[in-house]
Amino acid sequence: MTTKRIIIDTDPGVDDALTFLLALASPEIQLEALTTVCGNIGIDKTTRNALAVLELAGASRIPVARGCALPLVSPLGTSGEAVHGTSGLGKADLPEPKSQIVDQHAIDFLIEHILAEPQEITLFMIGPMTNLALAIRKEPRIVPALKELVIMGGAIKQGGNVTPLAEFNIYADPHAAHIVFHAGIPITLIPLDATYKCLLTTADVEHLNRIDSPIARFVRDATAVYMDFYKKYENFDGCALHDPLTLATLIAPELLTFEEHHVDVDISGGVSNGNTFADLMKVSKKPVNMRVAMDVRGRDFVELFIDRMESLSRRI
Amino acid sequence: MTTKRIIIDTDPGVDDALTFLLALASPEIQLEALTTVCGNIGIDKTTRNALAVLELAGASRIPVARGCALPLVSPLGTSGEAVHGTSGLGKADLPEPKSQIVDQHAIDFLIEHILAEPQEITLFMIGPMTNLALAIRKEPRIVPALKELVIMGGAIKQGGNVTPLAEFNIYADPHAAHIVFHAGIPITLIPLDATYKCLLTTADVEHLNRIDSPIARFVRDATAVYMDFYKKYENFDGCALHDPLTLATLIAPELLTFEEHHVDVDISGGVSNGNTFADLMKVSKKPVNMRVAMDVRGRDFVELFIDRMESLSRRI
Amino acid sequence: MTTKRIIIDTDPGVDDALTFLLALASPEIQLEALTTVCGNIGIDKTTRNALAVLELAGASRIPVARGCALPLVSPLGTSGEAVHGTSGLGKADLPEPKSQIVDQHAIDFLIEHILAEPQEITLFMIGPMTNLALAIRKEPRIVPALKELVIMGGAIKQGGNVTPLAEFNIYADPHAAHIVFHAGIPITLIPLDATYKCLLTTADVEHLNRIDSPIARFVRDATAVYMDFYKKYENFDGCALHDPLTLATLIAPELLTFEEHHVDVDISGGVSNGNTFADLMKVSKKPVNMRVAMDVRGRDFVELFIDRMESLSRRI
Amino acid sequence: MTTKRIIIDTDPGVDDALTFLLALASPEIQLEALTTVCGNIGIDKTTRNALAVLELAGASRIPVARGCALPLVSPLGTSGEAVHGTSGLGKADLPEPKSQIVDQHAIDFLIEHILAEPQEITLFMIGPMTNLALAIRKEPRIVPALKELVIMGGAIKQGGNVTPLAEFNIYADPHAAHIVFHAGIPITLIPLDATYKCLLTTADVEHLNRIDSPIARFVRDATAVYMDFYKKYENFDGCALHDPLTLATLIAPELLTFEEHHVDVDISGGVSNGNTFADLMKVSKKPVNMRVAMDVRGRDFVELFIDRMESLSRRI
Repeated sequence: MTTKRIIIDTDPGVDDALTFLLALASPEIQLEALTTVCGNIGIDKTTRNALAVLELAGASRIPVARGCALPLVSPLGTSGEAVHGTSGLGKADLPEPKSQIVDQHAIDFLIEHILAEPQEITLFMIGPMTNLALAIRKEPRIVPALKELVIMGGAIKQGGNVTPLAEFNIYADPHAAHIVFHAGIPITLIPLDATYKCLLTTADVEHLNRIDSPIARFVRDATAVYMDFYKKYENFDGCALHDPLTLATLIAPELLTFEEHHVDVDISGGVSNGNTFADLMKVSKKPVNMRVAMDVRGRDFVELFIDRMESLSRRI
Repeated sequence: MTTKRIIIDTDPGVDDALTFLLALASPEIQLEALTTVCGNIGIDKTTRNALAVLELAGASRIPVARGCALPLVSPLGTSGEAVHGTSGLGKADLPEPKSQIVDQHAIDFLIEHILAEPQEITLFMIGPMTNLALAIRKEPRIVPALKELVIMGGAIKQGGNVTPLAEFNIYADPHAAHIVFHAGIPITLIPLDATYKCLLTTADVEHLNRIDSPIARFVRDATAVYMDFYKKYENFDGCALHDPLTLATLIAPELLTFEEHHVDVDISGGVSNGNTFADLMKVSKKPVNMRVAMDVRGRDFVELFIDRMESLSRRI
Repeated sequence: MTTKRIIIDTDPGVDDALTFLLALASPEIQLEALTTVCGNIGIDKTTRNALAVLELAGASRIPVARGCALPLVSPLGTSGEAVHGTSGLGKADLPEPKSQIVDQHAIDFLIEHILAEPQEITLFMIGPMTNLALAIRKEPRIVPALKELVIMGGAIKQGGNVTPLAEFNIYADPHAAHIVFHAGIPITLIPLDATYKCLLTTADVEHLNRIDSPIARFVRDATAVYMDFYKKYENFDGCALHDPLTLATLIAPELLTFEEHHVDVDISGGVSNGNTFADLMKVSKKPVNMRVAMDVRGRDFVELFIDRMESLSRRI
Repeated sequence: MTTKRIIIDTDPGVDDALTFLLALASPEIQLEALTTVCGNIGIDKTTRNALAVLELAGASRIPVARGCALPLVSPLGTSGEAVHGTSGLGKADLPEPKSQIVDQHAIDFLIEHILAEPQEITLFMIGPMTNLALAIRKEPRIVPALKELVIMGGAIKQGGNVTPLAEFNIYADPHAAHIVFHAGIPITLIPLDATYKCLLTTADVEHLNRIDSPIARFVRDATAVYMDFYKKYENFDGCALHDPLTLATLIAPELLTFEEHHVDVDISGGVSNGNTFADLMKVSKKPVNMRVAMDVRGRDFVELFIDRMESLSRRI
């Protein structure tokens, strides 16, 4: 088995944190770095959370580079706190991390690492795409050097979760998404159409917590606010594993059903702002620019996720 | 059985013509009038076609009122000819109609008839909604007097057939759709999500033509160009019964699966212009303004359509 | 001298009322009718005010046709009351009019009268252009039958008075303006660039009121709230004669400086919604569609206005 | 006299080149660096031109940092070649520069130099503002460290020179302008309203060329295509000193008439895209975010420009 080398660009965020843990628990993956961005909460907290979750998992060796504090053009939203809690990690109360960020802006970190080993690194984008958008504009040579992007974002046939049309990560910085979508990098998109089918239930979390472990407890505490939100607004007992599902492209691609589409983002600032739309009927004759996970065997993925968390819990 | 009294506002158009025939073939329905509008083709041709198809079916007693020659704000499109042929009725060559339109603009015809018998008439909108939009602005009292609207238009989860997001009838006059959607009239929307599941095949048309009848021949000739278009652009042998499906709400409602949604139209003039979108996740908290047919037992409807065409063919 | 036959489409409104009086006081003009529309205030009040002001001036013979109660697509604004008072006529307390509106919608009244005598009638548009826009779409033959439109609306180099870019009449129904501007009728536009130079002062009003007359008193009482608004928000003692200035095109055209431009309206719904903009540098190569009054000898016009009001005051 | 330390961010471009020469000819100014950006022409040519013009003027000591090759979100336009010639410097045929760019991206160069000496550097933006926009998002601390921005861009009462509403520099990257305008840096805007009043004529250029000097010849050759463009499209014998006028803020501020306004940019992507608009009537109640040169004693500035070019011509 070849281990896949990945960097995760992230705004942790509960499901971001679960994504790091899943990556660390997965032998198929070598997590090379995290780059942080504002999104679910502000950049100070997302950066702190990135360091703290790595520390929890005994992975402080993995570098963290701090990125952008504001979206490209849109104002900074604040709706993330309702979902992810004030700290961004629900009710989890992780100690202040001892490790430090690297002394390089996320933009330059991405440029340097991607150019250093062209076609080696797959970048997972699980927050607003501000860092990569700026990196592309600063150093266009990273476009051909990137192996692939896997993006959690958008809603194709599914409705949006911020506006009727827009999903959170894209809505938070639609201009960044526009830059990234049209740059010419191979893209796999994991939209709400797939992620809302991967629902972690309270029963799953309880099951995991039969193991007495900091990891299991973290999963429980981190998802607590998130699950309250789902219960209140979406009338469902559990929460969607939006960001972790991106890793299914490496650890269980057989669970995903892909379609190839030309996908674009509305950046008009109007009622459709942030809408990520595919040309499903091919009426525009524009070329395919990404493959899109339109479906997933969701329960299978949740069970895989729990399995991996159990392994990690036994190790840590 | 109570017969339902309906007026059809229409831009015939092949599937518009099939809708008139289906209405005339259906004992559940009393077709009271047609009002014409520009859309698939220009107003002169749509009006002529309305008269000619009624004459073909021996129904020249049914009044036809001519309506608007241009959309409200958007420029007049011309893409309809590729689908419906130059005449608007494919390869059907109907004689010049002997009957005349009524001496009243469609706007005033609608206002007068709807106000005359409040809550009696259901209006079927199977073209751009310019006539009704103007009628509402001219005489707001028709809003409470209308029993219901059944609209063929939009694409919710399905892609658009004119742009990646927009369906033809809505795209042709999005401002009219905006006026109608927000007027406060009870609405049933039949979007592409349902209509693309009702595919009339060449085998169906051949089957019907075992009967030697002007009606059967008309169905064959009228759908010929339409089917060529589908074969060429959508790689399918057959054509969708978009407009006739609206009548399923009266003659076979059990075939349709409805959801209730707040639906709006993008009129920004940008890339999303004419997008008819539902708030599927109820994030906007806006009240439901229509029921939407999100699914249909399509083959059952096509067979019902063929049955009714056979009855009509035997009569005429 | 040939008397010019005009119809005024109007949402009275203080300066609308002054426009009727100026027309009645001007031998160059034959005022044939008023058609009313919502705008500064609702349609019930604008219609009542139209009747009441004509009655005040002994001109109840002039027909008034009631028009649209809502703008075409935009929601009904309510900002007009701050400028024009709750009644729409400031502190003027006119008796309930005894005369009645004609039994025909303004849309049909305009169509019938304009088609009856092609190229005879000049239409003055001093409110939102909803009525004419609907008339054009209902009966396109009025386009070549209209002699000319004179429109109070827009702001070219001047800033807007509702948003940074938009003037009230256009902002209240930008889609109607879009229809009218692009219909192909000869247009003279009187934008804020000219009207803000025609400032009626309290001294002017006092001067007029040396004559003891219902007209003089009406001018004083009607402009009172309007002047308060100007004092409060625009730091000026007086008020702009926006609507009356349109009549300068007939009674004192030498006071106006015209430029010919291609003028368009933003109807995107965004930050520029309702902006009336000219292609001043001719970069778009689009043909001229109107002449625009970019300047006026404002004080001369105000003095002419006062002169005419004095004549009328002596007559009534 | 205190010498003002400036960096010019630029896309040379004819009038950009004249701006460098004017800065070098002006004892009031210490030109510290140039940063280049795509705009009038592509980044390779603008960077080469920056080096070549400095070399022509014996100023190769001044560092040049290469910046962004593409606008933030908008596609790269190409209209600049019609105005500035294929090379970007009209008919001037400067030798290939011997000097090199610094080994730092313009974004990082700006960040480092501005943070090194807070409140010391005034940045002159005479091209699209992509570099500064990215610098602000990468390192927000440059906002309080910048002394001032002087921007050539926009058209307030004047029409646009690319679209009816939009000026070239803003239109080329409206999103960058949006970021810069709202960052909170003190801004002086020099829009077309002022620059079109500073017209360098062929007589001026001939007058300058009484001196036999590489500088005088460059001014003549560089402006040749530019003047042809003006003659053809704007029917004027001469060309506007758009970019050089920014330096009037340091060398002849008494020539400029300023107003303070809240200025914003339309980034909707529609007909008003790139419109730089001021709230002239203060209707939005938004705080002033820049001072705007609404007028200039244009001929006085042109004569000052010629004087300075003569001095420089005598020196080099």
